[in-house]
Amino acid sequence: MTIQVYNVLTRKIEPFIPVTEGKVNMYVCGPTVYDDSHIGHAKTYVSFDVIARYLRFRGFDVLYVQNITDVGHMLDTGEDRVLRRARQLSARPMQVVETYTRGYFEDMDALNVIRPDISPRASGHVPEQIAMVETLIEKGFAYEVDGSVYFDVTSFPEYGKLSGRRLEEQEEGSREAVRTEKRHPADFALWKKAEPEHILRWSSPWGEGFPGWHVECSAMAAKYLGQTFDIHGGGIDNIFPHNECEIAQSEAAHGEPFARYWLLAGTLTLEGIKMSKSLGNTLTLKDALEKWRPEAIRTFILSSHYSNPIDFSDAAVEAAYKG
Amino acid sequence: MTIQVYNVLTRKIEPFIPVTEGKVNMYVCGPTVYDDSHIGHAKTYVSFDVIARYLRFRGFDVLYVQNITDVGHMLDTGEDRVLRRARQLSARPMQVVETYTRGYFEDMDALNVIRPDISPRASGHVPEQIAMVETLIEKGFAYEVDGSVYFDVTSFPEYGKLSGRRLEEQEEGSREAVRTEKRHPADFALWKKAEPEHILRWSSPWGEGFPGWHVECSAMAAKYLGQTFDIHGGGIDNIFPHNECEIAQSEAAHGEPFARYWLLAGTLTLEGIKMSKSLGNTLTLKDALEKWRPEAIRTFILSSHYSNPIDFSDAAVEAAYKG
Repeated sequence: MTIQVYNVLTRKIEPFIPVTEGKVNMYVCGPTVYDDSHIGHAKTYVSFDVIARYLRFRGFDVLYVQNITDVGHMLDTGEDRVLRRARQLSARPMQVVETYTRGYFEDMDALNVIRPDISPRASGHVPEQIAMVETLIEKGFAYEVDGSVYFDVTSFPEYGKLSGRRLEEQEEGSREAVRTEKRHPADFALWKKAEPEHILRWSSPWGEGFPGWHVECSAMAAKYLGQTFDIHGGGIDNIFPHNECEIAQSEAAHGEPFARYWLLAGTLTLEGIKMSKSLGNTLTLKDALEKWRPEAIRTFILSSHYSNPIDFSDAAVEAAYKG
Repeated sequence: MTIQVYNVLTRKIEPFIPVTEGKVNMYVCGPTVYDDSHIGHAKTYVSFDVIARYLRFRGFDVLYVQNITDVGHMLDTGEDRVLRRARQLSARPMQVVETYTRGYFEDMDALNVIRPDISPRASGHVPEQIAMVETLIEKGFAYEVDGSVYFDVTSFPEYGKLSGRRLEEQEEGSREAVRTEKRHPADFALWKKAEPEHILRWSSPWGEGFPGWHVECSAMAAKYLGQTFDIHGGGIDNIFPHNECEIAQSEAAHGEPFARYWLLAGTLTLEGIKMSKSLGNTLTLKDALEKWRPEAIRTFILSSHYSNPIDFSDAAVEAAYKG
């Protein structure tokens, strides 16, 4: 019996037919390793753990790649999350990355989440990202300004096809509009010039800099899974801009479709409110695992379809576990 | 009271005086992740665990970097260890790397070895290695032949100062003498041209290829610890050619001394014989940990000075643990 999946890209339930019969190549956006993992991470990665286990149970040879973001994921202030954390802890950026990568896998192990087959790091794939940016410039999809490179969203008419956002909507009121070096406010960075104090930096054809957040997933997915692969997963929160930018970069660079099926996990709220550090309502997995058994957290997460949002509360976890 | 250390570089016991007062920057050659860790690894890494703990106990701010070798460590046959293992397991090279990196850290955790602060991977630092090779060519210490780059040992008169080997000795009977593209039989590869079937490959100024084994440690030590740092550790088995080549590359490229103190752990033999896969006498840590408690293995290893050789046997472990 063919497996049916809800494909966010087409907004339809479709039969799942892999590129190569019997094989599934799956990429899931992994964590940015600058702080403790929280129960929102559990929602996403327990969901894809079950999806990978189910596909294997159904006889597919699954190759599961999930990246580790350790460079280029910027705050709204323009500061790299890892660098800010390193400054706060008076540590080297790569010490921060080791600490929280290890913590992430410890938490996932505690939740009985099977490890991805390959966990590539963004900082370990800078040459592949530079090569992709070079291709995008050559093909006319990207342009350089003063040591940074931007993707020209107007050159890719399908931009917005995953999230359903149209360029005209994005133009109004974008926080990014202040970046005057961009041709269009929705253009996004593929490579950023490193200011003198920025210590995560590499040489590139455009001078010293660092890769933008989105391009790592495009480059690493292509390296390990090929230009067209079966499933792209992640949390729905990253559908825009991250996933949308991945599609634009990959399909523009390769001239081939990127992932065929987009499976995105619904958001986890905490007592009705989106978790947010600025609101102070985050629940780390270390704290959650002190309070509940891993099976309780897994059961609660799996009590609803992975694509649904779910609200975390003491009562809901207990009810799910008793049930 | 000043700490006294035996410095393999000078063959003397010397007072330990770090580059920066109160800080210790330490690099230890890590494992090549293509198979299960064995008790020889325990000997080396338990030793440096105790050294790091002792330095911290004495009040030093220790930054401990230990690499993961996942590319370029070739067998005598010229095949990459990781690639051969991937072929045997019908797996992707990076799956092999994930599996055995994880296994290594699990074994070390079981032995209560504190993790290094930074565990950089060779494959994640290709741009840094290419930059170093470019510098060596520019400065006249290296030359390119048909897409590969070799270090010219005759250009570095101090080559041999760590191991005490002289060039004249190395010339005779070297297995490497068959590589006719080298100018001198002792010249070693900094970058190797990738044959079409070689899948661990990157673009470089010399075409598609991959870094030689030795250059990763030089490039990553400099990146994370600076050109001159305090302690370089590892197992005595790697003193030649690996450690010797590190010194030559680093000091030639930077014009500065490399590590000030070389601390090398003695060899572990198994019932009197050097462990070797071809002899079939290896004891993996997973097997050893099924038979003995971690404290027994640690106590046995620490029953002798780290720089001494030690012979592993049931009787010796039991005697050390009872003692």
